[in-house]
Amino acid sequence: MNFSAVDHALMARALRLADRGLFTTQPNPRVGCVIAHGERIVGEGWHRRAGEPHAEVHALQAAGDHARGGTAYVTLEPCGLHGRTPPCADALIGAGVARVVVASEDAFQNEGRAIERLRAAGIVVETGLMRDAARELNRGFFARVERGRPWLRLKLAMSLDGRTALANGESKWITGEAARADVQRWRARSSALLTGIGTVLADDPRLTVRGLQYAGPPPLRAVLDRDLRTPPGAHVLDGSAPTLIFHAPAARPAPADFGRVECVAVETGAGGLDLSRVLAELGRRGVNELQVEAGPVLSGSLFAAGLVDECLLYVAPVLLGDTARPLLALPPLSEMASRWHLRSVERRQVGDDLRLLLRPPNQATE
Amino acid sequence: MNFSAVDHALMARALRLADRGLFTTQPNPRVGCVIAHGERIVGEGWHRRAGEPHAEVHALQAAGDHARGGTAYVTLEPCGLHGRTPPCADALIGAGVARVVVASEDAFQNEGRAIERLRAAGIVVETGLMRDAARELNRGFFARVERGRPWLRLKLAMSLDGRTALANGESKWITGEAARADVQRWRARSSALLTGIGTVLADDPRLTVRGLQYAGPPPLRAVLDRDLRTPPGAHVLDGSAPTLIFHAPAARPAPADFGRVECVAVETGAGGLDLSRVLAELGRRGVNELQVEAGPVLSGSLFAAGLVDECLLYVAPVLLGDTARPLLALPPLSEMASRWHLRSVERRQVGDDLRLLLRPPNQATE
Repeated sequence: MNFSAVDHALMARALRLADRGLFTTQPNPRVGCVIAHGERIVGEGWHRRAGEPHAEVHALQAAGDHARGGTAYVTLEPCGLHGRTPPCADALIGAGVARVVVASEDAFQNEGRAIERLRAAGIVVETGLMRDAARELNRGFFARVERGRPWLRLKLAMSLDGRTALANGESKWITGEAARADVQRWRARSSALLTGIGTVLADDPRLTVRGLQYAGPPPLRAVLDRDLRTPPGAHVLDGSAPTLIFHAPAARPAPADFGRVECVAVETGAGGLDLSRVLAELGRRGVNELQVEAGPVLSGSLFAAGLVDECLLYVAPVLLGDTARPLLALPPLSEMASRWHLRSVERRQVGDDLRLLLRPPNQATE
Repeated sequence: MNFSAVDHALMARALRLADRGLFTTQPNPRVGCVIAHGERIVGEGWHRRAGEPHAEVHALQAAGDHARGGTAYVTLEPCGLHGRTPPCADALIGAGVARVVVASEDAFQNEGRAIERLRAAGIVVETGLMRDAARELNRGFFARVERGRPWLRLKLAMSLDGRTALANGESKWITGEAARADVQRWRARSSALLTGIGTVLADDPRLTVRGLQYAGPPPLRAVLDRDLRTPPGAHVLDGSAPTLIFHAPAARPAPADFGRVECVAVETGAGGLDLSRVLAELGRRGVNELQVEAGPVLSGSLFAAGLVDECLLYVAPVLLGDTARPLLALPPLSEMASRWHLRSVERRQVGDDLRLLLRPPNQATE
């Protein structure tokens, strides 16, 4: 397809609108829509929350009769099936839109054949404009729909010499306030936050979003606790957010202790709970982006198993020395050629700290 | 002083000229000079090599009679004493320059009272224009002259998780070709390269500048080898560059093995040779910038002793795991508040790797 500069500008606008749903659309994707005649915008909208109207509906309402003969720019293929709301394909046809430009196709919508139906109604449909940016915005949604498990983001904070805590376990704080506030934004866009029993016992994390006002659901909390060792007073058992405790089938949660959370038994593999099954279960529950905030053992296991989609790494300009705790426990290497490679996707200064976003090289930019 | 925009532009030009001597002026400072009437440049020059004319002489020669009544911008206080060349203060006076603007004073020249003599001759002298940049360019020279030891740059290359070699010692290569070529430029601007016997035994480094054409003297090679364990066939003993082997007074170098290098006995302190004495000796020998390329023990000792002025840290986007070798061996910390802080001075992408230049917070930008 050859898209014009106006097409690019208006799809970019639709993507910025979609981004407004970053913290709130869970488990739905973030979607934006712009309706225009040439470069004149007559209506726009974005999806705010699951159960509320889709982006196209907001944009069509804003455009009213002006939608007729116009072009609709949609960041994601419109829905073609009745879900909690009527199909957007029908709404676009009914409004008399002449052309629909779609950034990214949606495997989830294939059954609805929305694009076929739009074309059958005489509408020109073009796809793929700014597809990479559209997939990047919903990388969690696409990961879940296309491969059945969440997009896994491993959050790590370390010193310049790659250490996450002193030998005595003290880890508060390596990074500065700005970095810790930044982490809250990454938590807020995540459908779920995952940690391990080691971190629960050492740090008693709350795994909630703090210091941000937003109207979305709180991230699900998930804890890998094979033998159900989470102490009764732990913050993750306090019922302040939906919580899943994954444990081995042989462990039996005591209702008195685990009454405010949901306990899910999963098979164990070498070294602990079967991580693929845990991720599949989270995918079934609608988790798009999963943020892991765990210690070196669980983090290293996920990484070595090839289950990490991106590392969100904060580097503080401090040194802790060789007796401090390592970033990731990984299998020993016998030759340099076997080292694990990552690809730097983004680098940013956050307060005094450096923030790196890295992905495995085989992981396409999505 | 109030300096004009023209003053700033011409001093910036003089600094760029000075920078041309980056690899060649050893042990002299890098100095540039511009002579102008208003914004019209009538002569310029820079110091190329020790024993050859100073920047002012080149600029005055280029200006000829046009120097009379002009302003001379000099990045470093002119010399006032007869050294290997006649004093530049006299040359400026003789040429009839009306005004001299100096970026940075030079403690080394105080005895010559060049500025006093210029003023006594009726020349307007102003100092301090772009002083920080001028001191930064010659931070090695100023360190040696003002405090009696070289500017110590600790060069380190590590994985994202802060590891410098596999458990089996393999370290070739963590960083990419571009980073390794970049290191050669930092070597070339150094007066000396220092390593420890551990690195000599493990890696047999050449400690020479490779892949660069420049007309300066090769950096002095220095090895800390308390017990004279450097093997006779080691590259550092091959006589291809001036070399110092520092050893304990009790050790006796065999002439057959150490015939092509100079051996210097220094007192030992806790854990090895007295590092302060080593640095003082290098300072006495005219070493301005000293680049240390050593293992975690020597690097950590220098750092913990507060002797490191800057860390040149290459970070490769790879992971080596917790069994791999640490960046720096440092004394164990019992509380987070005691962690060592650094200040990021510069950050740059070099090929696939990230290059960080960091300094201790108490280290002024020089």
